[in-house]
Amino acid sequence: MPQASGLHPKEMREKIRTGKWQGPTAGCCGGYVQANLVVLPKALAYDFLLFCQRNPRPCPVLEVTDPGDPEPRTTAPGADLRTDLPRYRVYKGGKLERELTDLREIWRDDLVGFLLGCSFTFDVALQRAGVPVRHLEEGKNVSMYITNRPCRPAGALSGPLVVSMRPIPPPLISRAVEVTAQFPLAHGAPVHVGEPEAIGIADLSRPHFGDRVSIHAGEVPVFWACGVTPQAVAMHARPELMITHAPGHMFITDLPDEELAHRLL
Amino acid sequence: MPQASGLHPKEMREKIRTGKWQGPTAGCCGGYVQANLVVLPKALAYDFLLFCQRNPRPCPVLEVTDPGDPEPRTTAPGADLRTDLPRYRVYKGGKLERELTDLREIWRDDLVGFLLGCSFTFDVALQRAGVPVRHLEEGKNVSMYITNRPCRPAGALSGPLVVSMRPIPPPLISRAVEVTAQFPLAHGAPVHVGEPEAIGIADLSRPHFGDRVSIHAGEVPVFWACGVTPQAVAMHARPELMITHAPGHMFITDLPDEELAHRLL
Repeated sequence: MPQASGLHPKEMREKIRTGKWQGPTAGCCGGYVQANLVVLPKALAYDFLLFCQRNPRPCPVLEVTDPGDPEPRTTAPGADLRTDLPRYRVYKGGKLERELTDLREIWRDDLVGFLLGCSFTFDVALQRAGVPVRHLEEGKNVSMYITNRPCRPAGALSGPLVVSMRPIPPPLISRAVEVTAQFPLAHGAPVHVGEPEAIGIADLSRPHFGDRVSIHAGEVPVFWACGVTPQAVAMHARPELMITHAPGHMFITDLPDEELAHRLL
Repeated sequence: MPQASGLHPKEMREKIRTGKWQGPTAGCCGGYVQANLVVLPKALAYDFLLFCQRNPRPCPVLEVTDPGDPEPRTTAPGADLRTDLPRYRVYKGGKLERELTDLREIWRDDLVGFLLGCSFTFDVALQRAGVPVRHLEEGKNVSMYITNRPCRPAGALSGPLVVSMRPIPPPLISRAVEVTAQFPLAHGAPVHVGEPEAIGIADLSRPHFGDRVSIHAGEVPVFWACGVTPQAVAMHARPELMITHAPGHMFITDLPDEELAHRLL
């Protein structure tokens, strides 16, 4: 999406808010941090914040809004989490009920928004370091899989780890680890290298979220913890309500990517 | 305390639990992470966990226990937060009510324990890097000061940042920053270098917590965020109840110091 890559996040959020952009956000606003969104009632907010503390690789917290307040005052002052993402998912009792492009009609005074770091931040860094990023090359969404590895539970919340996968040529695996380890707030280093069956992935060609990508001869599938994990938690633990971004349709913050490398969490 | 420096944390916690050690823990169990303790009723746990998320330098969370459960199952399986610290402070309505050596009589089913990283971890690393650590040289507790810098509030909790101070010779300031920046879960890099009055410290010779240390000619006071900050929050925000460690009397975990450099938070 080259026409959106040079936009400032404020301009891009304006386009999204007014319905002029409804697609995925990969490649938009180059250099700025994009974030996963999770919205929960205040009654579940402690369990989720603790879940994030106990599972920092899939759920690195960038900001938590105050109950009822849709403005992420630290990462994007003036933005509105109800309107500034292109597409949302509403999970009720563990079921994906519907997708929406605007949350204003269903917003409540007790809703708390969580913004979690996203691998889009390190995808750019990988490319700069000469590591191929297949889903970007192919103009697709990254492949994501539900694994057999349980997250550490917190109160009412539990569920399996979700990972994203990038096929990497063996001579570049070490570099891919080094580059992504620099971004702990964007999921950090891989959680698994090779052997998809060891983490419960039977068929790489059938991702649970996102798109299938080509794996060239000799390439090794490398797996990173993924911010779609809370959606697997919703399906597993069946909370009353969880609203998330639709995979690939992220919230674009005002933070430069570099902040995630240096920011102390 | 050379006689305790070589003990394993399990042995040291046993000594503390049985009343054979009641002093500060600086220098005990070399190579293992020590932690600040904050205990709050579950009703305040969300606000405090959010306070930590918003103020990660003073409050880097290592573990949060489940309500009523005194065992830190991740950082020290088998330990008991009610008995395994040498000395506790009980704050009620913002006032330091008393100090105790055992919490069993006042423990409640709704109490949640938070373990926060501690600068003892980087003190050792500073010494290894050739940076003098004055309070260790002088066998004292580190000097701590309440600053004029507000923490970012969270719900009912707010208050000023507390810092620890180490006098550093100017040629070693950069090294001190580099070394401590490697330990984000132990407060990380300094928050301020020199100019104590700029952060509201009128008199370095009168610390608010801990001991006064010597400052040699030419040395610069360097300030790190401090895990005593929650005690300043207790005094400022006056929650019903907050129990903490007594300054310098920390909880000793089973985590090797290196974990805090590599662990992803």
